[in-house]
Amino acid sequence: MPSKRSDIDSFLAMDVLAEANRLKKAGRPVISMAVGQPSHPAPDAALAAARAALEHGHLGYTDAFGRESLRVAIAEDYRARMGIAIDPARIAVTTGSSAGFNLAFLALFDAGDAVAIARPGYPAYRNILKALDLKVVEVDANAEHDFTLTPEALEAAEKAHGVTLAGVLLASPANPTGTVTGRAALKRLADWCHARGTAFISDEIYHGLVFSGEEASALSFTDEAVVINSFSKYYCMTGWRIGWMVLPEKLVRVFEQLTQNIYICAPDLSQIAAEAALSERKQLDGYCNIYRNNRNFLTSALPAIGLPVASPMDGAFYAYVDVSRYTNDSLAFARQILHEANVAVTPGVDFDPENGGRFLRLSYAGTEAEITEAVERIGNWLPAR
Amino acid sequence: MPSKRSDIDSFLAMDVLAEANRLKKAGRPVISMAVGQPSHPAPDAALAAARAALEHGHLGYTDAFGRESLRVAIAEDYRARMGIAIDPARIAVTTGSSAGFNLAFLALFDAGDAVAIARPGYPAYRNILKALDLKVVEVDANAEHDFTLTPEALEAAEKAHGVTLAGVLLASPANPTGTVTGRAALKRLADWCHARGTAFISDEIYHGLVFSGEEASALSFTDEAVVINSFSKYYCMTGWRIGWMVLPEKLVRVFEQLTQNIYICAPDLSQIAAEAALSERKQLDGYCNIYRNNRNFLTSALPAIGLPVASPMDGAFYAYVDVSRYTNDSLAFARQILHEANVAVTPGVDFDPENGGRFLRLSYAGTEAEITEAVERIGNWLPAR
Repeated sequence: MPSKRSDIDSFLAMDVLAEANRLKKAGRPVISMAVGQPSHPAPDAALAAARAALEHGHLGYTDAFGRESLRVAIAEDYRARMGIAIDPARIAVTTGSSAGFNLAFLALFDAGDAVAIARPGYPAYRNILKALDLKVVEVDANAEHDFTLTPEALEAAEKAHGVTLAGVLLASPANPTGTVTGRAALKRLADWCHARGTAFISDEIYHGLVFSGEEASALSFTDEAVVINSFSKYYCMTGWRIGWMVLPEKLVRVFEQLTQNIYICAPDLSQIAAEAALSERKQLDGYCNIYRNNRNFLTSALPAIGLPVASPMDGAFYAYVDVSRYTNDSLAFARQILHEANVAVTPGVDFDPENGGRFLRLSYAGTEAEITEAVERIGNWLPAR
Repeated sequence: MPSKRSDIDSFLAMDVLAEANRLKKAGRPVISMAVGQPSHPAPDAALAAARAALEHGHLGYTDAFGRESLRVAIAEDYRARMGIAIDPARIAVTTGSSAGFNLAFLALFDAGDAVAIARPGYPAYRNILKALDLKVVEVDANAEHDFTLTPEALEAAEKAHGVTLAGVLLASPANPTGTVTGRAALKRLADWCHARGTAFISDEIYHGLVFSGEEASALSFTDEAVVINSFSKYYCMTGWRIGWMVLPEKLVRVFEQLTQNIYICAPDLSQIAAEAALSERKQLDGYCNIYRNNRNFLTSALPAIGLPVASPMDGAFYAYVDVSRYTNDSLAFARQILHEANVAVTPGVDFDPENGGRFLRLSYAGTEAEITEAVERIGNWLPAR
């Protein structure tokens, strides 16, 4: 029998991916706007570094927190680009940000603890928290609160749920809303957490992908947050499963012990490639310009075909669109679009179990040609209903 | 503040690895017998497949359970080598066996459930179980019980601990003892579990490395066990972080949902390389012969320098040696050997919190020259005490 705690939702974007892969294999010309996956490969320098390492092929377990040279390079990147001094000893290389979330939830929270996340938000937050016996407090990140988490909304949520929050997790830029929480608002939230002894987790995996507003790292004003980042998005390395955390000094050893036991270490070749990727911003900024063009196109093209954009679209590479005029069952609707229009999109229920039936998320990390074609297909399909 | 459940032990072999890496970087000629890591790189076919994939570099998220072609190839390998028919739908590719253990513990057990493991045994079992709020029941795998777990020993443990076991985990070949549990004994244990509704997890990550005795997979007599395997050991792919599970059909969807959320998927390039590795047994069996020679050498060389072997050494690539004539603090003893004899070994307390102070584990996955030199160094150091 499966455990009770494993009774979580599926990550629907992954289910859509699996279904899209099956259809593609059967010869269907599916365009995927379902998963947050850049269409470009890892930057040239990363691929070259990986090829060079394969010449000898001696890859092995690294230290649990990763290769020293990568940790130093990440620290140097914070210094050079953001003027933030980070001791490399506080940097933990992880098996994607997925490992970062799992480790942070285990290191910071005990069974029964309440943790706040934004709704809509990344579904794996909710599902991992549940599987680890934590109480998920979903807080509406709506227009009233600038689509982000605020102390006021969190205090109201505590009252409504009758809990004291043990932790708060905020992503900026956010998935699926694209919300960019500026420095002042982020600092206000972190200060509120710190003053109350509430753990603050700052998900910064979409950093580098900000088209409007102010990109801010929690590290620019606090050493107490657990900061989670990744090479998946800006660095185009989803399939390499490589990311990092910056930890409060006093938590370093606890995270290290958990990492040793639960992960051993991140993939060695991915660590080598990631280190090289850090120096390749010119190519990556070029990709970023493609997303920017896609975003500008979609800002007008989506409403024009009858899909109003329901959130800021300031960062990351997602459009969260309102489909309430067509359906309140976004899961069935997404399946129809996949099967009838050959475009894979993600149902809003993935991100918002409450209101997500009226929304879809479209990833615009693809090429301009793909995005244009996908919108045309959906546009041609929509009026036919 | 860290959570209570994160108050686990460190994985000392990883601490020793980190310390050995620091010493090596400082120019010390350290030989590592500390971690279970083959000294050979991944097989040629695996490296070639990875290089070919890097030509285009298009790596991405795969299905949560991995590439279909790899799952089919693993199923075919069971059929061809062991005559066992497995539906590829039951095969989940994982981010190393580490992910397999974490997923299995979450999928099968709720907080407070009691799970039996062998003592001595792989420390991460104990530590992951603890971090997931599970009750660890350590059962002495001693000479009386052929260094394995038996129904009798488990029943005695239930009485002694006042618990009913929710699960039993057995590794064969075992780390650190090298015990190979033959088909009849393994079946008897699995049957006992099945009859009582106790989950049975069969850790088969050292399959392919059996020097004496009978290698048996739980899959040869049951579809109800969760079988965990890995490309790390026989296939020499530790640093690639790639493994697999074979699941009971009724648990497939639960494991898939957990995998989607907690891992997304295993590293794509590692999946590609692993598929190629499956066809490269000739080269790998050659490496295996090196371990066999090392084993034969150590069987007499270790006692000769004053380190009697305390367990079977029938499989895997570890010698578990008795150092009780020198110390009951194997941690301090291992540190001395590292710093004074330049050989990294793992203290027995990693594997056995109760009696491990009197044992060390030596990995013999290195080259013959390394192992010979390491034994000479330890031998020269020992009488000098």
